[in-house]
Amino acid sequence: MELYGYFRSSASYRVRIALALKGLPVTHHAVHLVRGEQEAAAYRALNPSGLVPLLVDGDERIGQSLAILEYLDEVHPVPPLLPADPGGRARVRSLALDIACEIHPLNNLRVLRHLTQGLGLDEAAKLAWYRHWVALGLAAVEARLAGDARTGRCCHGDQPTLADAVLVPQVFNAERFDCPLDAMPTVRRIAAHCRALPAFEAAHPSNCPDAA
Amino acid sequence: MELYGYFRSSASYRVRIALALKGLPVTHHAVHLVRGEQEAAAYRALNPSGLVPLLVDGDERIGQSLAILEYLDEVHPVPPLLPADPGGRARVRSLALDIACEIHPLNNLRVLRHLTQGLGLDEAAKLAWYRHWVALGLAAVEARLAGDARTGRCCHGDQPTLADAVLVPQVFNAERFDCPLDAMPTVRRIAAHCRALPAFEAAHPSNCPDAA
Repeated sequence: MELYGYFRSSASYRVRIALALKGLPVTHHAVHLVRGEQEAAAYRALNPSGLVPLLVDGDERIGQSLAILEYLDEVHPVPPLLPADPGGRARVRSLALDIACEIHPLNNLRVLRHLTQGLGLDEAAKLAWYRHWVALGLAAVEARLAGDARTGRCCHGDQPTLADAVLVPQVFNAERFDCPLDAMPTVRRIAAHCRALPAFEAAHPSNCPDAA
Repeated sequence: MELYGYFRSSASYRVRIALALKGLPVTHHAVHLVRGEQEAAAYRALNPSGLVPLLVDGDERIGQSLAILEYLDEVHPVPPLLPADPGGRARVRSLALDIACEIHPLNNLRVLRHLTQGLGLDEAAKLAWYRHWVALGLAAVEARLAGDARTGRCCHGDQPTLADAVLVPQVFNAERFDCPLDAMPTVRRIAAHCRALPAFEAAHPSNCPDAA
């Protein structure tokens, strides 16, 4: 398989975690987002959305990190990224979506650029925007994790799932932008536990071939 | 089953479409977003995220529309919302996520309110923001749909999938905010086809019990 991604893209980071958890080898292709390589015609031909990550598996070209995670889990089911029961699967997916739909889309590179270059926000206002959505979104995730007996060492039980593969990159981003996480002890505890696991360590941006 | 939602919430609309496609009866509970009912303590106790929709099925309380759609498809598999092959499933999910992660989160009510009340944008700037993300996001979806032989009368073949349940509410929103769709003939064709189907018609905001 081949993965087109960017070391700091948290959506790419999610996919690297899933590949590492499943022990799947992959060839990395760097798409440098800050340099705009995702807009190049050659990349658009591969992925008309102009986004990373993109997974190529034989004839399949799959964009959107959560679709890639589900695909990997269907084609390489061991170890599973989702629990077996429909209620547990729904909980894991909805935790992942609480981050992937409510935090990340508001804070990715193209939105931040639109805020500064399109709307003229200064750096302080941009940072305030970033931290606002992280605070709001992770508070909701914290409330859900802290208030549910299904939470274990990981978001759902003691084995990493799709929710952990989304949570850890979001916490990485939050720390990079100095977002306060004091009110989120469960989020911090789970992220610390997962980050110490070899698969999460291997997937860390600093261990990515295109890391600066 | 019980569905907590709001007639104009496109995430609620997606779930209504899926329920109607599968012929599943549901009790509707209105959560009036403009009046802030999603922030009420009683609702937060049900859904700590403070978002709609929320599906209650026995002991299960499931938030996030895409997690609900996957749950419904697992528990009530006929008619399916996803194709059988992993590559097709990934395509449908990634099309849905191209809307649910790249367009909708930027344009929902709480973000629009933050733009005007938090950042002081005027109505024209708010509308420009809305239309910018619809134009960018739906252009990507159009390119994917128009360039793939798997596209049929619906997003994937001739039967509605999870992608159509997400596309139709997004097109409804785009039209409500006068977003130009001239450059998106495939999107318009598929939306028109689906909207004429009885399940989509039944799920339309104007047919929702809490419609104004």
